[in-house]
Amino acid sequence: MKAVVVRQGESAPTVAELPRPEPGPGEVLVRTLRVGVDGTDREVIEGNHGGYPEGEDYLVLGHEAVGVVAEANDTVFEEGDVAVPTVRRPPADGSNEYFERGEPDMAPPEACVERGIDGAHGFMAEYFTSPADLLVPVPEELAEWGFLVEPVSIAEKALEHAAAARSAFDWNPESALVLGNGSLGLLTLATLESRGYDRTYCLGRRDRPDPTIDVIEELGATYVDSRRTSVPEIPDAYEPMDLVYEATGYAKHAFETVEALAPGGVGALLGVPESWSFEIDGGRLHEEFVMNNKTLVGSVNSNVGHFEAAVETLADLPGWLLDDLVTGVHGLDDYEAAFATDANRRSARTETRSRNDETTIKTALQFAQI
Amino acid sequence: MKAVVVRQGESAPTVAELPRPEPGPGEVLVRTLRVGVDGTDREVIEGNHGGYPEGEDYLVLGHEAVGVVAEANDTVFEEGDVAVPTVRRPPADGSNEYFERGEPDMAPPEACVERGIDGAHGFMAEYFTSPADLLVPVPEELAEWGFLVEPVSIAEKALEHAAAARSAFDWNPESALVLGNGSLGLLTLATLESRGYDRTYCLGRRDRPDPTIDVIEELGATYVDSRRTSVPEIPDAYEPMDLVYEATGYAKHAFETVEALAPGGVGALLGVPESWSFEIDGGRLHEEFVMNNKTLVGSVNSNVGHFEAAVETLADLPGWLLDDLVTGVHGLDDYEAAFATDANRRSARTETRSRNDETTIKTALQFAQI
Repeated sequence: MKAVVVRQGESAPTVAELPRPEPGPGEVLVRTLRVGVDGTDREVIEGNHGGYPEGEDYLVLGHEAVGVVAEANDTVFEEGDVAVPTVRRPPADGSNEYFERGEPDMAPPEACVERGIDGAHGFMAEYFTSPADLLVPVPEELAEWGFLVEPVSIAEKALEHAAAARSAFDWNPESALVLGNGSLGLLTLATLESRGYDRTYCLGRRDRPDPTIDVIEELGATYVDSRRTSVPEIPDAYEPMDLVYEATGYAKHAFETVEALAPGGVGALLGVPESWSFEIDGGRLHEEFVMNNKTLVGSVNSNVGHFEAAVETLADLPGWLLDDLVTGVHGLDDYEAAFATDANRRSARTETRSRNDETTIKTALQFAQI
Repeated sequence: MKAVVVRQGESAPTVAELPRPEPGPGEVLVRTLRVGVDGTDREVIEGNHGGYPEGEDYLVLGHEAVGVVAEANDTVFEEGDVAVPTVRRPPADGSNEYFERGEPDMAPPEACVERGIDGAHGFMAEYFTSPADLLVPVPEELAEWGFLVEPVSIAEKALEHAAAARSAFDWNPESALVLGNGSLGLLTLATLESRGYDRTYCLGRRDRPDPTIDVIEELGATYVDSRRTSVPEIPDAYEPMDLVYEATGYAKHAFETVEALAPGGVGALLGVPESWSFEIDGGRLHEEFVMNNKTLVGSVNSNVGHFEAAVETLADLPGWLLDDLVTGVHGLDDYEAAFATDANRRSARTETRSRNDETTIKTALQFAQI
């Protein structure tokens, strides 16, 4: 079968011919429909994140997949079911408490591998296998958008943890700010809209006309241009935020988030920057944390429960949004196009964004149709 | 009646003669037994924290009080009841949503005054009044220790918020580290012991023999000398911590806490530093937050529910601990002694501690006996 891989020493993906995998006991063979591409894939390709499976010199890419069960293999699935795989798997030395509890998302990096990212082959192939209990059913009518379940599940987990962090008091959030107008930022913004936030904002650094700004405004949110209004200036320029969702991975934003929060507010941190030293007014930030009961919650990955919630959320998102968000679905003969720079692209240090394709928001590779 | 006040332009408390307050509707007149002294009192005296009531040039000190109801004034109380007042009151412009919800502890500083600290007279007087619903009953046998209910309530709230922040997954904390061996740190350490933490640690910077180190070890905890082991070194030298409780107000500790945490851990921030800029590896801290699902929770003040929980906690603390912790109870004729530097003393910037009285941990002023 054909697979999209990145080989050691190379900085661009290629198509390889690999044997079709055989499902083991409890595993399902899935025929791949579509696999989404995101910033993590690009970091993996560039060698800035993740790693190859032990003893191998290539990695099958892809962690945002949707497919159709080809061999149910005596599991709860039936052939023809549409399903989405979760990303984390136990490490080479076997399962551990995180997987046994159904919370692999809470595992530290050394207690798991991540398919298509770190230490395990991903889903960008004509077929993949997955343990049935790490495969989440998706209604057939959502099949074409199913590759968005994984990114939405990331938001589900972060928002669940953020709300939990405010569950010791009567928290009634009204205002929310998403930092970053990439596809994850926009999907999160749409999710927040459907969760009853009265006023939502999304920060970016692009000029109009721009398709991400159109999506932001079509969702009823306010676009905040970070070149005009810095994150700490947002409470004065707009309002203090009950929730801030950091989806840029720009490290200064993690700390500026404390200043953008309303009293009792929570910042969810999702981006992953590299080591980078800079000066902060740590005394003032510490004081702000304490005197205004603020919280920062780091969140990575997601578990089966979050995938299930994401299926529901995705089903409720307006069709125009998905149409606008997914700017390219490319066949295997055109796979390079799926990896072209998208609006989610940023350098952790400079917060700049490559400008070569301003109309790209979210892309996917299509392996088959249902 | 006699009261201990700090006057504008002065940097030490004095005893003043003030009229005995009259309880208004719904208020109780309380005859004061004891009032504890803590680091916040010293910051108020030095003019570094809080402020005078509007239009006045002095402040009655004291926010850690216990007293006996002298006039029940048609409330749920009876004369002779022992009770402890909470600290926050509505601001001059009237009540607000935080007080109406019973959560004044979640109010931003501008939406409340704090008795004995900021904008309202405190409890260091022979009598004080309090709304009955902001007065918490204490069993008579706890009367002599009742001034510890307020500091314990601060820990109750912070620990409640920290646990809430980890309630979205199966969190089973085993290791806890308290930063700071002042009286609040030691009280929190004792509280953690009684909450089933398997291994507890307390960080300080004092040489043996030292009464706080004796208390730490008598509680079964491990003393960590910050001069030998910095906070980021603690996971390697001891173990990563499921909970870190920051009670020094040393701003660098707030950020170092992220490095001391175990995956899925939570840091509770309580100290209040001044503005102070320094360099951090913000990229690495941000990455740590995200990749290991870590959380920081700022917490200030406490509400009636936390005071009620603190009464229960205090009743369960061993007698030897309270005897060892309270190193001085001083009469009004000796009030200066109650304000002498204690082990809780620190400079937010230098993390040094005045060494002039190493045997003092916690002091109180005694106005009357039951």
